[in-house]
Amino acid sequence: MPSFTPHAADDVAIATIRTLAVDVVGKANSGHPGAPMGMAPVAHVLFSRFLNANPKNSKWFNRDRFVLSNGCALQYVLLHLLGYKLSLDDLKAFRQLDSKTPGHPEAGHTDGIEVTTGPLGQGFANGVGLAIAQAHLGAVYNKDGFDLINNYTYVFTGDGCLMEGVASEAASLGGHLQLGNLIVVNISIDGDTAVAFTENVEQRFLAYGWQVLHVDNGDSDLAGIAGAIAEARKEKTKPTIIRLRTTIGFGSKQQGTHGVHGAPLKADDIEALKTKFGFAPDQKFQVPQATYDLYSEFGKRGAALEAEWNSLLQSYAQKYPKEHAELTRRIAGELPAGWEQTLPVYKPTDAAQASRKLSEIVLTAIIPGLPDLIGGSADLTGSNLTKVKNSVDFQPPSTGLGTYAGTYIRYGVREHAMGAIANGLHAYGAIIPFVATFLNFVSYASGAVRLSALTGHQVIWVATHDSIGLGEDGPTHQPVETAIALRATPNLAFWRPADGNETSAAYLSALKSKKTPSVLSLSRQNLPNLEGSTIEKAARGGYVLHDEEKEDLTIVSTGSEVSIAVEAAAKLKEQGIKTRIVSLPCWLTFDQQDEKYRLSVLRSGAPILSLEALSTAGWAKYSHEQYGLPAWGASGPYQKVYEKFGITGSNIAAVGKKVVDFYKQKGGEVVSPLVKAINL
Amino acid sequence: MPSFTPHAADDVAIATIRTLAVDVVGKANSGHPGAPMGMAPVAHVLFSRFLNANPKNSKWFNRDRFVLSNGCALQYVLLHLLGYKLSLDDLKAFRQLDSKTPGHPEAGHTDGIEVTTGPLGQGFANGVGLAIAQAHLGAVYNKDGFDLINNYTYVFTGDGCLMEGVASEAASLGGHLQLGNLIVVNISIDGDTAVAFTENVEQRFLAYGWQVLHVDNGDSDLAGIAGAIAEARKEKTKPTIIRLRTTIGFGSKQQGTHGVHGAPLKADDIEALKTKFGFAPDQKFQVPQATYDLYSEFGKRGAALEAEWNSLLQSYAQKYPKEHAELTRRIAGELPAGWEQTLPVYKPTDAAQASRKLSEIVLTAIIPGLPDLIGGSADLTGSNLTKVKNSVDFQPPSTGLGTYAGTYIRYGVREHAMGAIANGLHAYGAIIPFVATFLNFVSYASGAVRLSALTGHQVIWVATHDSIGLGEDGPTHQPVETAIALRATPNLAFWRPADGNETSAAYLSALKSKKTPSVLSLSRQNLPNLEGSTIEKAARGGYVLHDEEKEDLTIVSTGSEVSIAVEAAAKLKEQGIKTRIVSLPCWLTFDQQDEKYRLSVLRSGAPILSLEALSTAGWAKYSHEQYGLPAWGASGPYQKVYEKFGITGSNIAAVGKKVVDFYKQKGGEVVSPLVKAINL
Repeated sequence: MPSFTPHAADDVAIATIRTLAVDVVGKANSGHPGAPMGMAPVAHVLFSRFLNANPKNSKWFNRDRFVLSNGCALQYVLLHLLGYKLSLDDLKAFRQLDSKTPGHPEAGHTDGIEVTTGPLGQGFANGVGLAIAQAHLGAVYNKDGFDLINNYTYVFTGDGCLMEGVASEAASLGGHLQLGNLIVVNISIDGDTAVAFTENVEQRFLAYGWQVLHVDNGDSDLAGIAGAIAEARKEKTKPTIIRLRTTIGFGSKQQGTHGVHGAPLKADDIEALKTKFGFAPDQKFQVPQATYDLYSEFGKRGAALEAEWNSLLQSYAQKYPKEHAELTRRIAGELPAGWEQTLPVYKPTDAAQASRKLSEIVLTAIIPGLPDLIGGSADLTGSNLTKVKNSVDFQPPSTGLGTYAGTYIRYGVREHAMGAIANGLHAYGAIIPFVATFLNFVSYASGAVRLSALTGHQVIWVATHDSIGLGEDGPTHQPVETAIALRATPNLAFWRPADGNETSAAYLSALKSKKTPSVLSLSRQNLPNLEGSTIEKAARGGYVLHDEEKEDLTIVSTGSEVSIAVEAAAKLKEQGIKTRIVSLPCWLTFDQQDEKYRLSVLRSGAPILSLEALSTAGWAKYSHEQYGLPAWGASGPYQKVYEKFGITGSNIAAVGKKVVDFYKQKGGEVVSPLVKAINL
Repeated sequence: MPSFTPHAADDVAIATIRTLAVDVVGKANSGHPGAPMGMAPVAHVLFSRFLNANPKNSKWFNRDRFVLSNGCALQYVLLHLLGYKLSLDDLKAFRQLDSKTPGHPEAGHTDGIEVTTGPLGQGFANGVGLAIAQAHLGAVYNKDGFDLINNYTYVFTGDGCLMEGVASEAASLGGHLQLGNLIVVNISIDGDTAVAFTENVEQRFLAYGWQVLHVDNGDSDLAGIAGAIAEARKEKTKPTIIRLRTTIGFGSKQQGTHGVHGAPLKADDIEALKTKFGFAPDQKFQVPQATYDLYSEFGKRGAALEAEWNSLLQSYAQKYPKEHAELTRRIAGELPAGWEQTLPVYKPTDAAQASRKLSEIVLTAIIPGLPDLIGGSADLTGSNLTKVKNSVDFQPPSTGLGTYAGTYIRYGVREHAMGAIANGLHAYGAIIPFVATFLNFVSYASGAVRLSALTGHQVIWVATHDSIGLGEDGPTHQPVETAIALRATPNLAFWRPADGNETSAAYLSALKSKKTPSVLSLSRQNLPNLEGSTIEKAARGGYVLHDEEKEDLTIVSTGSEVSIAVEAAAKLKEQGIKTRIVSLPCWLTFDQQDEKYRLSVLRSGAPILSLEALSTAGWAKYSHEQYGLPAWGASGPYQKVYEKFGITGSNIAAVGKKVVDFYKQKGGEVVSPLVKAINL
């Protein structure tokens, strides 16, 4: 780390960031100029003096991670100036359709963006995840003389993020975990928060166990900013938050007013601002060569650091070939050959078990061969069954409760932060996070789950107690709408396995889907192992569990209700009604199969009845008739709750009979709902 | 308030609570005995000495509100002992089907339960809402000599609730709002939180601006508990949190261990415990007469207080007849006669406006006549357009920013707490809360929204920027799965109005639905006023906007896409294809219409195509073919984003043609998807 010596080029560079941000927002006629203008000085000091990264290889593994939690134009401006794959033309296309510079930064879409931000609080919690990932991988792979993984995570955040519960949860956990590698810069704006946010932020973060530093003049005290960052880096057992006071819209005529927050600056104000900063008032998107030159040093330093790191890695390969092979495999995102062989396989004669228990059996089988899996639960470990024997807690060594090399995270009752932290863990690389709570409380984390799917984070949710089958806890805990909310989320695999083989299939799919989060919806109650289920068939998302020629009825179901459908079919058989059973554990995966297969599973010729102990919403896509919960669940022993709602073999047989009679009486061909004029 | 003098009956009463809780959980063989055992002393001191309420009329308006945030058996035991409508038999039916004592307390289901709790953090935030309600109504209606509304809100919470983001958000806002009438008792359990929750809770709450008090021996220091409550009541400009240390499962053999948290006690432990507390070891559900006698004092005090209050109210009626009439109307949950007349009505020639703007026009029209409406936004007031002219902020007077009589709450960026606080506002009574954010961020508050629907809170969500029509902010902000998640939530009215009349209809319905929350999904972009829309028709949830005899096609749509469907129909007409247009702004309301009406709107005879700029999930219930977003949205000017996804008059016309051709070729009768063998 070079020491800080401010020079004239610094002011030019900061002015460049400010004026570029104004032009970017002005050209788009959309966006927020105030924040990037205020953050320009600290961004400049951080990137020009501290941050280690190589713009020519934005994926260099030991780079410092930078997160802009209140994502905005600033980040694009910086990426361009620093030499990432983002041109001035890309900046000019800010917020235009199909540009590299969408309204909020999306990881995977734009070179150099670490995590998707914009929805407030997420980036802050992602940062905690990124820092956990470094602490963990460093503890596992670093050796004497091989400080391979030692980067910092820097997060910029406004006060908006700090108000969000997800950030509070993450901050509390980050303090508990003593993440010294995490440095948050909180850009607070004078007078901006009087109506709703008057808490003492310093005291709150001290309460969480953070180091709190201050820079009173964030508009121009570059040495002060550099000093604070340097001090933050020295603190090894606490995360740091640097509170930076800035003037909103610094340099503009509206400086210090609200007008500059959410709307582009007016033309005359832009001109005055540029004149003040020594730029041509009538030209847009000006970048002095001196600024490019200054930032080229960032690129050179980063390239040199990466080269140094690569040679360190080569020596490491010599001395620690096993660790090296494992680490490089993990960084490449590949699973060890043959891992699937460890997945449990079941016969119908095997004992009935709850699918949460079947999940535990899978985890127990695969975790020894998959150090990539970093798990945890939001304080429901004993119910979610996610901590396998001999696993060690991820904890600061000083607590005596675990080590940073541990792979089990105690998230506390913090579902939303857990989801966002898991996104950060995955964004870091070399980690496949799994997290756990009751299915109903996945919705506490909706904000994070949606960004997981949008960005393509391979996060696995172990979501137990997935229906009225949880029984006594009652309707406050029984999901109804949760499944369809997750099924309607693009690029999210919602799995509801019916037995042991299907649970193995769900994990198989979740672990192979490198760019898709999966939610495994698991029962509290025991489920029999089904005749006709196999891992291979279930892995297609839907399949014929029990076939009949020229059937009178097909029942399509998922999870704990499949065995009830099987019971109903047996009763219908006694009445001469032939019933096929389709198990459809994952809609997303089934929808990805070819049309011929899908139409062979849910075929025309007889009515299709869906059965699930949840809202029926969404099922009309696959079935002519739907049976499910009419409204909320109920508290009681689960068998009685199932009876209350008529989800029993005998009642479903009666319903099936009614359906068969209705369609016979109606006459005409019964066409599968999958036969469509349009398919999006 | 009587002063505190401990006597022997106190110990008996506390032992009764403890042993009853153990029996209740033991009989159900389900539940958590540890927490109620630990909370027994503070519950006893609070109810026997401080809390003002009348068990014979649990709805007395000025009662103190009691919330058990980590809802459990304790509350049922207390309600029984205090004389509410809950018998010993009800306690014996704990967690049994259709009992008055479900697994977690549900307001409206059990006499004396103020809010539905169990999902952690909710009750804490509800408490902030209850306290805001008191502060507001007191400021509006109290007069010199008429301290009509002056109750306290007491919240019991464990550490689990305090870890949740929703509680952090609510605590920060509660401190800002200086809610001196709010007293939280935090029962923390020694050593329970070391793995994930080591923050300094005292310091955190001081940072929020709370008074923090301590009782080190919550197991038996009754005088200390009483002293802390008394001190809390004295602090008028800060909420108070009393940190109470207890021993988990106090008195049991497993005292202080985790075994006693989540599972019923073993038989021999129950016997030992009862013996220790002087109860017959082999008898269950024992209540000494001395305990009933002691608590009958609570009932007498409450009845006397209510009688006193009623006579105060009578004098108030004499002196302030207008205020009295308004207050009693509001308490009764009635709207002022004729308020609907103020709803704006539109003609097709009226200018196109964004439905968020139409919402503002409604609010501007109705708020002067409806002081019941207490609004607010999660820091997006300027975008949600929820603050009408001349409305005053709800703020502590000392801030100089408003008064407690103000009706506009600045929630800060705290969506989840906002939702839970709104539930508390409604639970208090005399208030209809409306809250606002972008539709996409309603999902941050899912946990609260679901409990709102389960409990039947009339909360109105003004959810703007409801689709890709928000344009530049991009996919991080554009809802896809949000609408179906809300539509699949029982007892939740999701309204997506297409124009001015439909927006008025949505408010009409939301305000008339006393036991149903409504989410109004509103556009950022302008929408034309449609030929054929009326408030009356839209109020049925779905109607024929444009009819045709012997149509070739029906397009069913909502919100901003209805006018696009109308465009498509015009283009199809040019090709000789007759297209009916159905507007379906609210599924819940439409589903409640009689079958004949529903089948006349979405009738058989021609294919039905649905159109919505969201996920198509759920639409197959109403339509044969679905057009919507195939996955995520995109960032760009909104017209371009609509074009990208083919949601334009000309493309929908082409899609409609394809649908018509497909069904013609297929032949046979086209039956409405509403024709069903079974309807749940």
